[in-house]
Amino acid sequence: MSEEDRLRIVPLGGVGEIGKNMMALEYGEDMLLIDAGLMFPETDMLGIDIVIPDISYVTQQAERLRAIILTHGHEDHIGALPYVLSKVEAPVYGTKLTLGLAEVKLREHHLQDRVQMRTIQPRDVLTLGPFSVEFFHVCHSIPDTVGLAITTPVGLVVHSGDFKFDPHPMDGQLTDFAKLQELGERGVLLLLSDSTNAELPGFTPSEKRVGETLDRVFSAAPGRVIVATFASNVSRVQQVIGTAQRYGRRVGFVGRSMVKNMRMASQLGYLGIGPDELLTPEEMNGLPDERVVIVCTGSQGEPTSALARMAMGEERHITLRRGDTVILSAEPIPGNEELINHTIDNLFRAGADVHYHLLSDVHVSGHGSQEDQRLMLNLTRPRYFVPIHGEYRHLVLHSRLAQQSGIPDQNIFVVESGQALELSAEACRLGERVAASHVLVDGLGVGDVGHVVLRDRHQLARDGFLVAIVALDMDSGEILVEPEILSRGFVYMRDSERLIELAREQVWQALEHVGPRSAVSAKIKDALGELCYQQTGRRPIILPVVMEV
Amino acid sequence: MSEEDRLRIVPLGGVGEIGKNMMALEYGEDMLLIDAGLMFPETDMLGIDIVIPDISYVTQQAERLRAIILTHGHEDHIGALPYVLSKVEAPVYGTKLTLGLAEVKLREHHLQDRVQMRTIQPRDVLTLGPFSVEFFHVCHSIPDTVGLAITTPVGLVVHSGDFKFDPHPMDGQLTDFAKLQELGERGVLLLLSDSTNAELPGFTPSEKRVGETLDRVFSAAPGRVIVATFASNVSRVQQVIGTAQRYGRRVGFVGRSMVKNMRMASQLGYLGIGPDELLTPEEMNGLPDERVVIVCTGSQGEPTSALARMAMGEERHITLRRGDTVILSAEPIPGNEELINHTIDNLFRAGADVHYHLLSDVHVSGHGSQEDQRLMLNLTRPRYFVPIHGEYRHLVLHSRLAQQSGIPDQNIFVVESGQALELSAEACRLGERVAASHVLVDGLGVGDVGHVVLRDRHQLARDGFLVAIVALDMDSGEILVEPEILSRGFVYMRDSERLIELAREQVWQALEHVGPRSAVSAKIKDALGELCYQQTGRRPIILPVVMEV
Repeated sequence: MSEEDRLRIVPLGGVGEIGKNMMALEYGEDMLLIDAGLMFPETDMLGIDIVIPDISYVTQQAERLRAIILTHGHEDHIGALPYVLSKVEAPVYGTKLTLGLAEVKLREHHLQDRVQMRTIQPRDVLTLGPFSVEFFHVCHSIPDTVGLAITTPVGLVVHSGDFKFDPHPMDGQLTDFAKLQELGERGVLLLLSDSTNAELPGFTPSEKRVGETLDRVFSAAPGRVIVATFASNVSRVQQVIGTAQRYGRRVGFVGRSMVKNMRMASQLGYLGIGPDELLTPEEMNGLPDERVVIVCTGSQGEPTSALARMAMGEERHITLRRGDTVILSAEPIPGNEELINHTIDNLFRAGADVHYHLLSDVHVSGHGSQEDQRLMLNLTRPRYFVPIHGEYRHLVLHSRLAQQSGIPDQNIFVVESGQALELSAEACRLGERVAASHVLVDGLGVGDVGHVVLRDRHQLARDGFLVAIVALDMDSGEILVEPEILSRGFVYMRDSERLIELAREQVWQALEHVGPRSAVSAKIKDALGELCYQQTGRRPIILPVVMEV
Repeated sequence: MSEEDRLRIVPLGGVGEIGKNMMALEYGEDMLLIDAGLMFPETDMLGIDIVIPDISYVTQQAERLRAIILTHGHEDHIGALPYVLSKVEAPVYGTKLTLGLAEVKLREHHLQDRVQMRTIQPRDVLTLGPFSVEFFHVCHSIPDTVGLAITTPVGLVVHSGDFKFDPHPMDGQLTDFAKLQELGERGVLLLLSDSTNAELPGFTPSEKRVGETLDRVFSAAPGRVIVATFASNVSRVQQVIGTAQRYGRRVGFVGRSMVKNMRMASQLGYLGIGPDELLTPEEMNGLPDERVVIVCTGSQGEPTSALARMAMGEERHITLRRGDTVILSAEPIPGNEELINHTIDNLFRAGADVHYHLLSDVHVSGHGSQEDQRLMLNLTRPRYFVPIHGEYRHLVLHSRLAQQSGIPDQNIFVVESGQALELSAEACRLGERVAASHVLVDGLGVGDVGHVVLRDRHQLARDGFLVAIVALDMDSGEILVEPEILSRGFVYMRDSERLIELAREQVWQALEHVGPRSAVSAKIKDALGELCYQQTGRRPIILPVVMEV
């Protein structure tokens, strides 16, 4: 494989992890980016708002970037776009709804005027440098999702996007079986395919299955129906609106992101009702209960979401009452179960009847299960296979399916983000590793919180801190005033007078036997650390401050 | 209902919440306690080790306490025993294994010699003051579990314990159908029944179902088999040992609590092998791989558990390798999914083959599902029903089953911990509310961490803290040295020189326009809070210290 005519595939996120999907495709002097997603922080990323990919690999060679291609409008595929576009310039390609949702994000960052957005449709073919990119429709939990067939100088690369083979999609648009089969006949060098549901047997059920549950619940509901789902699950909201219309109910939205996204989806014609037809909060309360449907955020129990606020009796416009019916139309994302359970408990306490995933078919996934994945493999019949979009175990399980489909073990590459692959028409091998770790966004800071700050936050979260301040006479070294002890998150200070007194004594003692002035701080720190542990079994962060006055 | 001849039932934990099960039964001058469990902290209880019931209600009338009765040996039923017995005195009744596990706990607190432990057997009848307590066997995920039939002056109260109707229990001991039916015929005034699995349809499968999976996995495993489960799931460990013996493998334990509990279970004769037959760590590594089974802690992905350490390559004795087979023989407890997923990913990365709940029948619950609950209701046919052992939604769903079984709505009481119930032979009504909240144990502190400390820990976890120290001349009010700025968990200090400089300037400015000396601190705090938010979008805890020297 010569250096010049190799294709490089560089996963920068979303491989071996969930979310922040991003991948670079390179050939010669040209580079494409596929998706620019964010992920939500893991539990141990304390205080972090969102997590985006490290794009230093891209910014270092920004002049090679020809385009950013978006497969669909979910956060984990478009959420990092503002951060990427504030560093590099490139036109952004996507379907109408995808770009609509991307624009909502860019507006929040005041970037909408600086970016070229180019709308594509399934079956469109774009020429971008040495690449010819053909879009094909796939079913997912949001309309207008596409996969990519990229003709490169070394062969055809198929990127599945997020997909499932829904036999009865809400918008009537099937995954493009014909195109996939045609690609398979043309000859696929490499398939990159969605691994998210590699743990689940069978086919993922049709979105239609949720419609049956909605029908059953709506037909029995005596009062208001409140449906919580993801603010980006446009397909689900379409279904709720359709069901509401059949039962003579009108629909309003609650929750910032839901209102914003659905206003846009409605304007673009995806919801089947115009923005003017949506209920205002006043109308939600003014209409008879049996004519009202409220669609809101909070299906993951997020404490500040509309549903959690309703459950706690803290939502400004909506007060729950007996007779209300709540549907949590989602499944828990791992890590959110406890918050969701608390919300469900509070909804029951408020008197509502609650339908959730353990009791009813209130949700189906937008990702294909094992049989969908197998079908994708068998339609495209790739020479090489790389499982993407999943955590490590999903990649392993997906690779087992590929083996069962007849792809030789040595042609399957289970890699993680940052591990480049190099392809020629005859070979595929591991390339170099590039930087592809997490960039943590905390408030206004992008990447300024790292290992040290997080480690301190962990210790602070567990045991708090204690600061001891001593003022010494610069010349004599004498202590000028009683040492000051401050603490938060360690013990309840008002009830801890004795401990504080002991701490002061430790400081005095440490200073009594003082050797060189520079050793004073370390001595105080050790003495106080030991005292705290011995008295409480806790290890707060200890900061001694010696001021020479 | 006269004050004297009423029976009081006071749930002190485990009703409307999972864990820390504890309930008081009172009549006249006598009180019984049923169970004394702990719960593990919820995610937002930062830094907390365990959570125990508030027993102030019991300690205030300690002289009335006749006995503590334990239904079985799980942490959520016996874990608070050392804390309770350090405050009140009473004999403890339980089956052999239950008391064995309780003794392990008491030893840790050096209380074993101060407590009277009295072993009972199913069908035993105890007279305790006005109560006659009959024990009956129920199936659960630990042998020697009992329910209670308590004859009181007002009628018969049945407490199910944690139960399921396993048709094929490991130890051959069925739940005591005959006794339950007899109780039903005798006439049950009140049933208190386990609600944990009220969300799940059907009967909970037999523990035997796991045996089939173990057989399948053991017969195909090329090397070592590593099984992670709860340290208290004695039934599961019994099965693993039985399977190991059939496949000519020997068994060793790894993980502190597993080793301790199983040594005791082995000594008492529950494991079918003596303590001497267990593999030492050296033997685990010395024997051929295909003769070794390791049973360990870590089925919930706990970061310091044996399995998580193995997955990270940090376990002292066991280093994973290709050919190892790992079984996570448990289901995720809500809140632990993320940790479990990380562990599974790391196990796959280490080259092991991993079997877990999404892929195989590696676990069945020890709690009955809806049909078990229904059967309990229909065998005992109680006049009044109170769902216990479950979070609020479980209680609501269990109460719906009771309604379906013909118990009138007004005879069903969905209450939460602390809500007393008063019964006569003819009536049941809500009594007073008593203190029954959480007592948080953090290190050596029992109950000293409360709302204020937790709130501070939350803020510290999210945004850290910043301390500004100024030394003023006591007389002139002049600043004596450059203000000192300290911070942790807020920004990375080494990269934040400019921010620290700005903070110092704010302090100078605040002091320049100083009014009364007492207002200086508040002024500095406001100025720095604003600076931090404006520069970083974060809100650290700000502590100004003004020292007058």
